[in-house]
Amino acid sequence: MSDARKDRAGLASPHRRRLLGQGAALVGGALAGSTARAVAADDANAPPSIPDWMRAPGADVGSEPYGTPSRYERRLIRNIPKNLPQYISASSRTPLQDLDGIITPNGLFYERHHGGIPEIDPSQHRLMIHGLVETPLILSMDEIRRFPSESQIYFLECSGNPGFEAMSGRTASDLVGLVSCSEWTGVRLRTVLEEAGLKSEARWVVAEGADAAAMTRSLPIAKCLDDAMLVYSQNGERLRPQQGYPLRVLLPGYEGNMSVKWLRRLNVTAEPAYSREETSKYTDLMPDGTARQFTFVMEAKSIITRPSGTQRIARGFNEITGLAWSGHGRIRTVEVSVDDGRSWTEAQLQAPVLTRALTRFRLPWTWDGTPTTILSRATDETGYVQPYFADLTAIRGTKSFYHNNAIIPWRIAASGEVTNGFVKA
Amino acid sequence: MSDARKDRAGLASPHRRRLLGQGAALVGGALAGSTARAVAADDANAPPSIPDWMRAPGADVGSEPYGTPSRYERRLIRNIPKNLPQYISASSRTPLQDLDGIITPNGLFYERHHGGIPEIDPSQHRLMIHGLVETPLILSMDEIRRFPSESQIYFLECSGNPGFEAMSGRTASDLVGLVSCSEWTGVRLRTVLEEAGLKSEARWVVAEGADAAAMTRSLPIAKCLDDAMLVYSQNGERLRPQQGYPLRVLLPGYEGNMSVKWLRRLNVTAEPAYSREETSKYTDLMPDGTARQFTFVMEAKSIITRPSGTQRIARGFNEITGLAWSGHGRIRTVEVSVDDGRSWTEAQLQAPVLTRALTRFRLPWTWDGTPTTILSRATDETGYVQPYFADLTAIRGTKSFYHNNAIIPWRIAASGEVTNGFVKA
Repeated sequence: MSDARKDRAGLASPHRRRLLGQGAALVGGALAGSTARAVAADDANAPPSIPDWMRAPGADVGSEPYGTPSRYERRLIRNIPKNLPQYISASSRTPLQDLDGIITPNGLFYERHHGGIPEIDPSQHRLMIHGLVETPLILSMDEIRRFPSESQIYFLECSGNPGFEAMSGRTASDLVGLVSCSEWTGVRLRTVLEEAGLKSEARWVVAEGADAAAMTRSLPIAKCLDDAMLVYSQNGERLRPQQGYPLRVLLPGYEGNMSVKWLRRLNVTAEPAYSREETSKYTDLMPDGTARQFTFVMEAKSIITRPSGTQRIARGFNEITGLAWSGHGRIRTVEVSVDDGRSWTEAQLQAPVLTRALTRFRLPWTWDGTPTTILSRATDETGYVQPYFADLTAIRGTKSFYHNNAIIPWRIAASGEVTNGFVKA
Repeated sequence: MSDARKDRAGLASPHRRRLLGQGAALVGGALAGSTARAVAADDANAPPSIPDWMRAPGADVGSEPYGTPSRYERRLIRNIPKNLPQYISASSRTPLQDLDGIITPNGLFYERHHGGIPEIDPSQHRLMIHGLVETPLILSMDEIRRFPSESQIYFLECSGNPGFEAMSGRTASDLVGLVSCSEWTGVRLRTVLEEAGLKSEARWVVAEGADAAAMTRSLPIAKCLDDAMLVYSQNGERLRPQQGYPLRVLLPGYEGNMSVKWLRRLNVTAEPAYSREETSKYTDLMPDGTARQFTFVMEAKSIITRPSGTQRIARGFNEITGLAWSGHGRIRTVEVSVDDGRSWTEAQLQAPVLTRALTRFRLPWTWDGTPTTILSRATDETGYVQPYFADLTAIRGTKSFYHNNAIIPWRIAASGEVTNGFVKA
């Protein structure tokens, strides 16, 4: 037996990894669940047959002045709920299970609107800054773009991702698709507030959107003077209409509805506005009937996106990969369990690990075909550990809706089929 | 005079920055070149007038299952040359002067094709790995996606960006728009080569594309075993057809044509292929008539994107911002001159500064209205400093075409108009 043959049998060369070969012979047969074949010695120097797309010139350069995905990827769209009574106050989700890396392409960023998507003429748009300031200001978009700028990669997440009662989704997107991540460019909010000059009594900044809902949230002044931004660009280009074109505020790590879109007004105040969206909504109902208000930060969370619900895996090598994030800062570790939580292994985090950004984690795994449940658990730089759903409900009851950051279980059947572990098999 | 009044006149509060106020009074008049106004005391608590887009509900959630830019941004497209004799072997450029941050949205990534853009069915696509390997392989896309993955933010740049004779463009895109930057996901090429098993004589990997040009380049084995990747995703979603859907090789920091798109074949060899694209093209003609071959690395370069050609600036505060990159690793410093190279100031680099990625730089500047020329100059982590064009031609003559990384001058007229400093005023 030659060295190479030994190697193929897994007997030699510990440095040679046989990833696709695990659980299946590479030579002379198909991989389990795949069409791979090794090439026989006599045709090893012949190229594979010439496909049709090499036989004639392809499409012209510039045939798409603004490019779109391949027509073979047309299924990769936002996850839009069916049969809602209305769609102007609703949400669509990012298809997390079909995405790689940490950047969400702008066309697939999640949506949550309260009065539909306005179509705003940027030359007519103005931002007013008033209230407890020395010099009230009205700024055009050209003026906002003249301030010193910065670019940061941050996640944005709806506070109801998922709601406490919404744990029965089939896919990763159904469960936590109300999170996305972009490189945002704009001006530090602090810079603009300093231009207006804050009065000493300033404690809150009431942000108002130029949508039909006049979406209004009260932003605490400390956050406004820390990392909050006024954002006009997302992944290089101008904000998309669904993300607040031409201007939004962005509060890194805070619940998404506070990053008011289509921003037209910042009213600096001593007290919060107690707006509709911070009284009747976006509060956390506790078992005793009281409600927690102003629960701003999205706490550490993670989800395995591959393998995940509706996917099917083959025996042998499978990389487990997913996303973790925390509104409190950087992800410190992600642990993965392939035995329903009995043991945990630390996953590899893709560098650079950025504060308040999605973090991609990965763990190599060889599945032997035994049914099991896989889980991921994030710990952030404050030491906070993502809880089980039971731990959350033990404190908050089941009438709560927002700020559900529970560990997500994926059940794997003997067939390799992956299903939501919250749903009884 | 109150403290606030003093401040507005620039007499008090050194901690208060008056960015938009520089060179113009904020209260009681418009800013130079802008429509900004401070709000008079009696209407400071009235919101700005209600725009039309707040008076009725906007578009539904999910009205765009795959989102597109605002219709007010329809001018923001690829920079496509006019009146070429043919477009199947040509290029389009990224509109750098209108983008922010470092991520290029997929719709605006630059193009360079040699036989048009093939439309490939991923279920039919195969990658063959053969030649000096122990086990030749044919892999489907599903199999390639089973290997361990990684995600990296890298720039990609055409080696003719711009050609030596092509320095007369009007915009930043005309000059160096053949560079873009994405988060790429795929498998380390080394992993797949190790799966096949390299023979000891392996020195080159000849990559072939599945386009009508069968684009072919020889990749040095050291790079293939270092950071080279097989890439299937870009900014989260699958590669766009223009960037090699469903699979390309990516050689970080090397000239773009080596990152062969629509990848179908890797032939491991002892010698390079001396293909058309590494003999008749993509070589550097020297003054003595010889040609440098296999000049792989794109050396340190930078360009100011704002202000840049065809833009117009106002007196007062202007942020100077642009992009720098190096195929040799990280950018160490970017210096900016606002006096045609007589003096230089170090710009601020946006963190994180990543290896072989675009790096955003910024410098605050107050323009007093005097005509001048502004420049940027990048230094990479090896200590290499971006040269003047005259320094390049002193060594390489004027018959060279590729690997032009000259310092780009922007001339600013008394009117604030910005034009290409290479073109006589």
